[in-house]
Amino acid sequence: MEIPHRHLFGPGPTNPYPGATAAFADPLLGHLDPVFLELMDETCAMLRQVWGTDNARTIPLSATGSAGMEAAFVNTVHEGDVVVVAVNGLFGQRMCDVAARCGAEVVPVEHEWGQPVDVDRVLSAQPSPAIIAAVHAETSTGVRSDIAALGADKGDALLLVDAVTSIAGIELRADDWGIDVGYAGTQKCIGVAPGLAPFTINDRAFERRVEKPRSWYLDLGLLGGYVGEASGSGGRTYHHTAPTAMVASLHAGLARILDEGLPAVWERHAAAGKLLQDGLEERGLELFAAEGHRLPELTTVKVPDGVDSATVRKALLEKHSIEIGAGAGAYASSVWRIGLMGPNATPESVELILAALDDVLA
Amino acid sequence: MEIPHRHLFGPGPTNPYPGATAAFADPLLGHLDPVFLELMDETCAMLRQVWGTDNARTIPLSATGSAGMEAAFVNTVHEGDVVVVAVNGLFGQRMCDVAARCGAEVVPVEHEWGQPVDVDRVLSAQPSPAIIAAVHAETSTGVRSDIAALGADKGDALLLVDAVTSIAGIELRADDWGIDVGYAGTQKCIGVAPGLAPFTINDRAFERRVEKPRSWYLDLGLLGGYVGEASGSGGRTYHHTAPTAMVASLHAGLARILDEGLPAVWERHAAAGKLLQDGLEERGLELFAAEGHRLPELTTVKVPDGVDSATVRKALLEKHSIEIGAGAGAYASSVWRIGLMGPNATPESVELILAALDDVLA
Repeated sequence: MEIPHRHLFGPGPTNPYPGATAAFADPLLGHLDPVFLELMDETCAMLRQVWGTDNARTIPLSATGSAGMEAAFVNTVHEGDVVVVAVNGLFGQRMCDVAARCGAEVVPVEHEWGQPVDVDRVLSAQPSPAIIAAVHAETSTGVRSDIAALGADKGDALLLVDAVTSIAGIELRADDWGIDVGYAGTQKCIGVAPGLAPFTINDRAFERRVEKPRSWYLDLGLLGGYVGEASGSGGRTYHHTAPTAMVASLHAGLARILDEGLPAVWERHAAAGKLLQDGLEERGLELFAAEGHRLPELTTVKVPDGVDSATVRKALLEKHSIEIGAGAGAYASSVWRIGLMGPNATPESVELILAALDDVLA
Repeated sequence: MEIPHRHLFGPGPTNPYPGATAAFADPLLGHLDPVFLELMDETCAMLRQVWGTDNARTIPLSATGSAGMEAAFVNTVHEGDVVVVAVNGLFGQRMCDVAARCGAEVVPVEHEWGQPVDVDRVLSAQPSPAIIAAVHAETSTGVRSDIAALGADKGDALLLVDAVTSIAGIELRADDWGIDVGYAGTQKCIGVAPGLAPFTINDRAFERRVEKPRSWYLDLGLLGGYVGEASGSGGRTYHHTAPTAMVASLHAGLARILDEGLPAVWERHAAAGKLLQDGLEERGLELFAAEGHRLPELTTVKVPDGVDSATVRKALLEKHSIEIGAGAGAYASSVWRIGLMGPNATPESVELILAALDDVLA
């Protein structure tokens, strides 16, 4: 089967860093091999840096970002717990569904899509929720919300945050901002193929965890022994077979990012996003996300009147081998999502996509 | 970090087929790219062949084999259902834990480890269970059980089968044997890196499924639309971001197997396993699994008196770059597990491991 090269400028996956792809060609290691355990330890240490945390329990879960969301709720929601969810897009909605399946009494705080989370409204939605949950960078709308403000006034609640599209793309400081539980994905600004969910949980949340959660696969109490978070490499116990090739690839992607330096990586994403958003507005296109809250790594733009969204996306793919995303939910055909993530956060990518749009929209 | 080449002769992962590794170097595709959807369709079609099924709902779940077990129970166990589990090793035990978390009233039927499932005892354990669950090839003991006999007399119960270590290694005929729900892994006889769980469920089981299972990530009702099982490529809806690199690798591994032909692949595993088991017995070593029920792809052998299990495994790894497995559970230090799976099911591998054992045990 002939696999074409695509410029992956959608909401993810992005094209991986070359080193992350190259790592797949290394010999496969067993999941209990001492060399793999060292590679896993290094991976966890690098994940702590991109999360901005000292949490011992910072690990790549063996499934995609959505399983990270499930792990976050299934380990922390006790039957009947009040969980306040800030809903300003698809992933906030999904949080409500997942939390409810874990036995939560969900209190959704609805927002207009395209707007950031209204911190005051979320904090005052319930007097003493067990958990407050929010999405840092809403992949469905391209909006950034103020997690630090939520963390500052969360009270006794645990703060549970989706950082799938923010991690390694924009500033993220889990510890400084009071994030108790966080999950992410590899396939966006980390620049690695999809398949793992970088996850972090602090002692405060771990101590309140569900002793026997509804999920065995995502049970952090069982997983802890496997990744050796508390006991060091010596105390590893078998839980499940880790996806060793994916972990090796993640290791390489993280090393690439930290070699450049996180502030430089954030700046690169910021610059590319601004260049794209300026270019789109110069062309008379209208951005969807609220001004002042736009993500640089994921730009949402309104499909112009009289233009068919799918036709344009098909032409971009077939003529330019460029993938961009449709909108999400009610905006499926009225919004496009353009991602510049990981290795694609460059001026060259911006030139490519703008030139292709000029061609296709002409 | 220097990654050594290992001969992965443990209980899995095995060394991948070269084509499965090479596929990782193909350009990464988006999870909704038409080329990826075609690749996914072909992967599902090939999975049907290795499962021996016509089930439309045959897919690679986006997590490892253990998540396949969770998906099997979480989608089929209704609160309070009686689930009879044949326990003749670690993975039967795990089934009991997972099923209980899904709300089952679990009826374990215990066996001595190393023995196959006693079909009569399992079938008579309860008058009318909702589910009967068993492991086809117990990875912890190296034992094969008679799934066809369970299927023939299962009555109205659903038959749920773990085929993690059997798929593509020994004969497996899901439809002929009456398997209603089955899960497997990629990292054993399929010869692909760990990270996906080949899964199959027939109409009978799907119709009895839990409408809103405790897991969102593994909810087959939601997943169905994503992989397009019923609707064809046209009807794909977004559920989660598929691990596209892993799926491409699985596609290549399956193509390699079906190119050789399943009966030839089974025969190759059978021949390699017999050669190894004969060689071990010639050396005075005692096999652990009951005679007549031994898996060719995974051989269990007793650690000789006066020999330290860990010392031998360490010497094999450091001197010969060969990984074998410790035993499981109570047999952790008294049994070794030697796998000859996928590309390693060859006479050359047998020579390597026997020569290395001769050296290390000398």
